[in-house]
Amino acid sequence: MTREPTEVTPPRGFPVVGMVGGGQLARMTQQAAIALGIGFTVLAARPDDSAARVVRDVVVGDPDDPEALAMFGRLCDVVTFDHEQVPEPGLTALATTDAAIRPGPGALAHAQDKIVMRQALTDLGAPCPAWLEWGPDTTVAQVAAHVGWPAVVKTSRGGYDGRGVWVVADAEELGEVLAQPLAPGARWLIEQYVPFTAELSAQVARSPHGQAVAYPVVRTVQSDGICKEVVAPAPDLDPDTALAAQELALRIAGELDVVGMLAVEMFATEHGVLVNELAMRPHNSGHWSIEGAVTSQFENHLRAVLDLPLGDPRPVARWTVMVNVLGGDHPDMYRAYRHVMARDPDLHVHMYGKEVRPGRKIGHVTVSGDDLDDLLERARHAADYLTGVVVE
Amino acid sequence: MTREPTEVTPPRGFPVVGMVGGGQLARMTQQAAIALGIGFTVLAARPDDSAARVVRDVVVGDPDDPEALAMFGRLCDVVTFDHEQVPEPGLTALATTDAAIRPGPGALAHAQDKIVMRQALTDLGAPCPAWLEWGPDTTVAQVAAHVGWPAVVKTSRGGYDGRGVWVVADAEELGEVLAQPLAPGARWLIEQYVPFTAELSAQVARSPHGQAVAYPVVRTVQSDGICKEVVAPAPDLDPDTALAAQELALRIAGELDVVGMLAVEMFATEHGVLVNELAMRPHNSGHWSIEGAVTSQFENHLRAVLDLPLGDPRPVARWTVMVNVLGGDHPDMYRAYRHVMARDPDLHVHMYGKEVRPGRKIGHVTVSGDDLDDLLERARHAADYLTGVVVE
Repeated sequence: MTREPTEVTPPRGFPVVGMVGGGQLARMTQQAAIALGIGFTVLAARPDDSAARVVRDVVVGDPDDPEALAMFGRLCDVVTFDHEQVPEPGLTALATTDAAIRPGPGALAHAQDKIVMRQALTDLGAPCPAWLEWGPDTTVAQVAAHVGWPAVVKTSRGGYDGRGVWVVADAEELGEVLAQPLAPGARWLIEQYVPFTAELSAQVARSPHGQAVAYPVVRTVQSDGICKEVVAPAPDLDPDTALAAQELALRIAGELDVVGMLAVEMFATEHGVLVNELAMRPHNSGHWSIEGAVTSQFENHLRAVLDLPLGDPRPVARWTVMVNVLGGDHPDMYRAYRHVMARDPDLHVHMYGKEVRPGRKIGHVTVSGDDLDDLLERARHAADYLTGVVVE
Repeated sequence: MTREPTEVTPPRGFPVVGMVGGGQLARMTQQAAIALGIGFTVLAARPDDSAARVVRDVVVGDPDDPEALAMFGRLCDVVTFDHEQVPEPGLTALATTDAAIRPGPGALAHAQDKIVMRQALTDLGAPCPAWLEWGPDTTVAQVAAHVGWPAVVKTSRGGYDGRGVWVVADAEELGEVLAQPLAPGARWLIEQYVPFTAELSAQVARSPHGQAVAYPVVRTVQSDGICKEVVAPAPDLDPDTALAAQELALRIAGELDVVGMLAVEMFATEHGVLVNELAMRPHNSGHWSIEGAVTSQFENHLRAVLDLPLGDPRPVARWTVMVNVLGGDHPDMYRAYRHVMARDPDLHVHMYGKEVRPGRKIGHVTVSGDDLDDLLERARHAADYLTGVVVE
């Protein structure tokens, strides 16, 4: 541990929130924490992590180390997370401190293990793709009958941004995936391949005492399992489906006792929506809300974990488009950055303080207005230009 | 100096901006710096200063100490300011480093000394209240003839938030004020008392290469010399006067070679506008722009001092109201904070991380919408409630 603050001291009466993880989600949460005037610290693995660069009382330590988590918890009134993959010994260590853990371990289990999540959603009657766990007695015939081909194979734990997910065409390909070693504690989940018409995300914020607010349902575009683009609200979504998606997300948050932000990623199909994934933290599909909603997902996450009244999630513009900036081949992107600002004075550029690596999420751009096609063109151009895909 | 980073290392190609001063203006600039992904540091007098609480690579040192400024300058590509009262030896020390000083000392002189400012504005033909310097040979008869009664007496240097300003009714009161000792380097400025119809502020951002943008002219309400309330855009202001005020601010920025944000505080009178004060930094009259404009004054200050293309200053709502929160008699305001959030989910609360002291600026609230009377009622109520003036 290279730096270890012994206390975090906001003004009298104001609480301290600690976020486990030093990525861009914690970085953007710091912007909201500054406005709220609370104490805010992060537990980051490295001093040059995205959030560690912009938070004063950063704790540099291993987020998987129970001792680091216990020390971190002692600095905080509330501990929350910028990712869900904190191992159980860490959560147990946190529970030995006086800090409230939000979301709690019981809720978090559903975002840590996809089979736990599928089972809980099925028990709730939430619409899901057909699924089964590949156990010692499962047969290929059961997969073919219950899930069909192609099928999607996932590790129940540890995957993110497309890692730990395979689409298999038949029994042979399935066998190849299942021959790979599993991480400790992980199991194989096999799901129906869903021919979706769109991918959606329904985000809600929920407080410990049960207040909840729903953001407008957004359309997401994924590529190679990584979120590329978000349009808020989702275009061409009929109001009944949008309302049903919001109600479903609110119900899941309540039933699973989620505290903070919940993102329910969904597939829109011709027969309604199906739940794909859950995330119990601010989420890439909500970055648009920084400028595009009255209260951003980052502020509402903090308000929720502090059991403060929640802010208004309504959009402030007809359309808001967010496009992720991925690293390209050029390590120095400052010239491109200057260019996109010159081209579009209305563009909001968010850089995460990360060194460029090909394919790495290093920032995003957001633009709001009335003409969706125009917004999409401008945001995509800016993101591509920053990545280095287009050079005018 | 309790903490001294030896370097500030943003990602490759990105510059480091340092802001001298650790107040709320530097704190809110940090929020903009996080989005831009640049390196950002502040020189703060105390580790619990408003900005020092939320910036990682804070330098704790005396902003009046030339050695501290030289050390600070060596960490930065660009040095800028959250107040203009840096003494000349400090600016000279900064000039020995490779950091660009923006705004430069030549421009800054006009915001440091009100007589330098009045002389320059008079030379430019900018409309000002009648004024004279009280020198060794000045007579009361000259004051009576040129400025009239009542008159406003100001120290040319060192006053802010109403300090260093007196309104005198007659020669006797004038004599009492002038009998007080002056700070070193300060002189007495005597100005016409202006019976204004409104106080206005015209803000512009200007880059080193001369690009400039003008924010809408806002109405400010001062009380005891402290800004209390801002409405953007200024209500009941005829478009010709608004345009003339913007053009005047742009001309002053250009003629004085201001880089960064310039606020021109003006009196609206029945015969047009008169310039009251200049501020060369983000300004209290521009806090509304965080949520109320496409690009906030804090982001545009950074873009300007970095010679990046400027962002769009246009408002995103019909009306935005900002009301300052002053400290009251209760040191722990967290209960009131919770109350105002519950009462108004659309309210933006900004707290500055300062301990409560009666009359101290400790935060502000902002709300946007279409119904100005409603917005005023809500923002004033929230600010009063946070201060402790009203208890429901």
